Amino acid sequence: MAQIIQPKVLKGFRDFLPGMEIPRRQLIHRLEDHFSSYGYVPIDTPVLEYAEILLSKGGGETDKQTYRFTDHGGRDVSLRFDLTVPFARFVAAHRNEIPMPFKRYHIGKAWRGENTQRGRYLEFIQCDFDVVGTDSAAADLEIMMIMTDGLKAIGAGESRIRFSHRGLFNMLLERLGLEGRSGEVLRIVDKIGKIGAAEVRRLLSELAGPEGTETLLDFITPAPDNRATLTKMVRLIDSIDDIAGTTSKRTGTTAAGAAESPAAKRLSAILDAVEELQMQHGLILDPSITRGLDYYTGIVFETFLNDLPTLGSVCSGGRYDNLTGLFMKEPVSGVGASIGLDRLMAGLEELDRIDKSASRTDVLIMMMDEELLAQYQKFARDLRSDGLAAEVYPEAKKLGAQFKYAEAKDIPLGLIVGADEIAAGTVNLKDLRKRESFEGLEWSSAREKAKELLD
Amino acid sequence: MAQIIQPKVLKGFRDFLPGMEIPRRQLIHRLEDHFSSYGYVPIDTPVLEYAEILLSKGGGETDKQTYRFTDHGGRDVSLRFDLTVPFARFVAAHRNEIPMPFKRYHIGKAWRGENTQRGRYLEFIQCDFDVVGTDSAAADLEIMMIMTDGLKAIGAGESRIRFSHRGLFNMLLERLGLEGRSGEVLRIVDKIGKIGAAEVRRLLSELAGPEGTETLLDFITPAPDNRATLTKMVRLIDSIDDIAGTTSKRTGTTAAGAAESPAAKRLSAILDAVEELQMQHGLILDPSITRGLDYYTGIVFETFLNDLPTLGSVCSGGRYDNLTGLFMKEPVSGVGASIGLDRLMAGLEELDRIDKSASRTDVLIMMMDEELLAQYQKFARDLRSDGLAAEVYPEAKKLGAQFKYAEAKDIPLGLIVGADEIAAGTVNLKDLRKRESFEGLEWSSAREKAKELLD
Repeated sequence: MAQIIQPKVLKGFRDFLPGMEIPRRQLIHRLEDHFSSYGYVPIDTPVLEYAEILLSKGGGETDKQTYRFTDHGGRDVSLRFDLTVPFARFVAAHRNEIPMPFKRYHIGKAWRGENTQRGRYLEFIQCDFDVVGTDSAAADLEIMMIMTDGLKAIGAGESRIRFSHRGLFNMLLERLGLEGRSGEVLRIVDKIGKIGAAEVRRLLSELAGPEGTETLLDFITPAPDNRATLTKMVRLIDSIDDIAGTTSKRTGTTAAGAAESPAAKRLSAILDAVEELQMQHGLILDPSITRGLDYYTGIVFETFLNDLPTLGSVCSGGRYDNLTGLFMKEPVSGVGASIGLDRLMAGLEELDRIDKSASRTDVLIMMMDEELLAQYQKFARDLRSDGLAAEVYPEAKKLGAQFKYAEAKDIPLGLIVGADEIAAGTVNLKDLRKRESFEGLEWSSAREKAKELLD
Repeated sequence: MAQIIQPKVLKGFRDFLPGMEIPRRQLIHRLEDHFSSYGYVPIDTPVLEYAEILLSKGGGETDKQTYRFTDHGGRDVSLRFDLTVPFARFVAAHRNEIPMPFKRYHIGKAWRGENTQRGRYLEFIQCDFDVVGTDSAAADLEIMMIMTDGLKAIGAGESRIRFSHRGLFNMLLERLGLEGRSGEVLRIVDKIGKIGAAEVRRLLSELAGPEGTETLLDFITPAPDNRATLTKMVRLIDSIDDIAGTTSKRTGTTAAGAAESPAAKRLSAILDAVEELQMQHGLILDPSITRGLDYYTGIVFETFLNDLPTLGSVCSGGRYDNLTGLFMKEPVSGVGASIGLDRLMAGLEELDRIDKSASRTDVLIMMMDEELLAQYQKFARDLRSDGLAAEVYPEAKKLGAQFKYAEAKDIPLGLIVGADEIAAGTVNLKDLRKRESFEGLEWSSAREKAKELLD
């Protein structure tokens, strides 16, 4: 006999059993319906691409964490580590085939290879939605609305989006003479939720000096309401003498002050709409939100569940002014977000809002007699035409074994019909949850009864 | 400026634009709903596994066509080339967690690496459904019913399943003294649809001699109806002197004749049920169906669309008596099928049964004035609460550009509201397909009108 191979998965990879895969698929379907209702359309791209395309943008860390190998044609290829780079490549490749502005979503797996000891998942589902080809307040707002409405639609309840604008943050850094070290500052500020204000102060003071640090910390602290926060952000920028001695072309600061900059005007337009839509309790202007990536240039945001804020952000994103820079000359601006589906699932599980039933079967048709196989399938067909999920147990095993199967699959109803019942023209229906029997029913009454019991 | 990278995909890989991805996702959702209605549950497995697990079973050809590399931990890993081997590994790994019989479906991508010149797709979606842990006629029949009913459910119309039983075929080969060369015979017979009877005769005669060849050709030719076909199969087996001189333990042949073998009895039970369910026009006993793989041991089948038989089989499968042999000692029998989703999509496209609309948006809310952004989102919200998909155009561009966008996305209705309409408390609705306008409507009437126009 051949040697038995251990049926194990790679470290960092997981099997999904029905109890988790059913709700995961349901979550994905609900998100897809939600995106569609906003006019977003799905795309798909290969999971394997030229390494040159996927890794051209990544820093050293991403490169190291990417599965990369040589294919059968000697090409240097990689498994995608996110859906953003493939989307940039897609937009550049198909720019003459897709209507702009282009609103798309993409849900698919991505991989990060690591020889990890930390129990991180190396295979995960990304869920991205973006609108590209427009730089407008309408698109910024819409991306954030999709998220808050979407979390309600999937049963995660109310949520809070914390958002800011990288343009204003960059103006502040410029005035503080920290323009060249913005990446470092952004990464420090981005960690405030994790490491706390005291540690942020300590780290910043090494870069910005005592006065700059206090200004930065003041800047990133929200005021009591969105409008007051924006006013304070603008005031702090204007309060600093321009160290370079000139107004900056890049960030659009003018003598009229930061309030007249495109960034402040964009935030103001968003705040107007947020107020008119009465969403100010769900969309909070929070200048400490920076998203550590250099990639973003406009609004940036993170999303927290009101019922489980400690989970961390379940959806983050922002605006970028040049998605496709690596692949074409004309810049394409866009705004988008990415849902951490695994984290969201974990949150819903913690909140006990996942139906972990082991199947969706409504009625198990017990097999009492193998000669009646065709008749059982007819019953199943009728039930399916009533919109119920019905399955036939495949062997005439003892009823005890069949009941046990129903229990393991969380099947609420059983239909029990043997040769005697066929002769009498009746069926027996059983509510397996309450162990209640309804015997000698005509088939049409049993169908009605089944629907009634399931309601 | 950095060098521009060509945004191209690898040969054999494809991007899916919305016009194809929308119907592909819809097809998948319909199949999922269909499987659920039969009590089948979804699972998921990693796309990357130990090469030892994925390749242990494959022949040389599969091994050569599999993406294989060394991961960051020095492990020898592969991308899955089908969903069958991962399922076997899954069943062995979770045998104590899953209720048997286990009815599962799995829809996911798989990959075959090749340095192909033939234009074959190296990335494709597999759709498998199986029931394991039972060797019963009920399960055999159910797998085939799921397919014929499923093809109707997805709009592919009526179909014909051609099925047979490897047990009877093996008995015939044994009687002909060809047991040791069964693989070669199976592969030749499997090609009859492609290469024709004359070529099959030529190839077989090299293996089976003139008499054996005629018997084989007679055996694989169906009679006018299922019952007559079964009778002929059994008669031909019984007509041959047992070359080995003994009855065979392995295939269950007894002195009572082939009709008493488990294989013939199984086929007979299936035929009984098929007749009682009046499905004999869709389920045809056809002994030329063998499926070339040694893997199968019981029924085998292929499925053809009545409206497009030249497409070839869109769903094939059969029964195997030891799914998990490589991973555990106790054998697990099952029956299952695999849908060629790409081929099925191509067939539906050829039959013009794919809705290739570029979006599912029902109403485009034109942006006439950026100050009205919040109001437009309120309209969109109302329409979504009516069950319609609505999107707001993100910029106050010329109406011409907005109409062009609607056309490119196949959006049937437009809502046109400027400051004047807001002042008057009315809206204008436009049927973009017929270029018909409905002006000065109250919002509640416009919502009604939109639904009416879309019906």
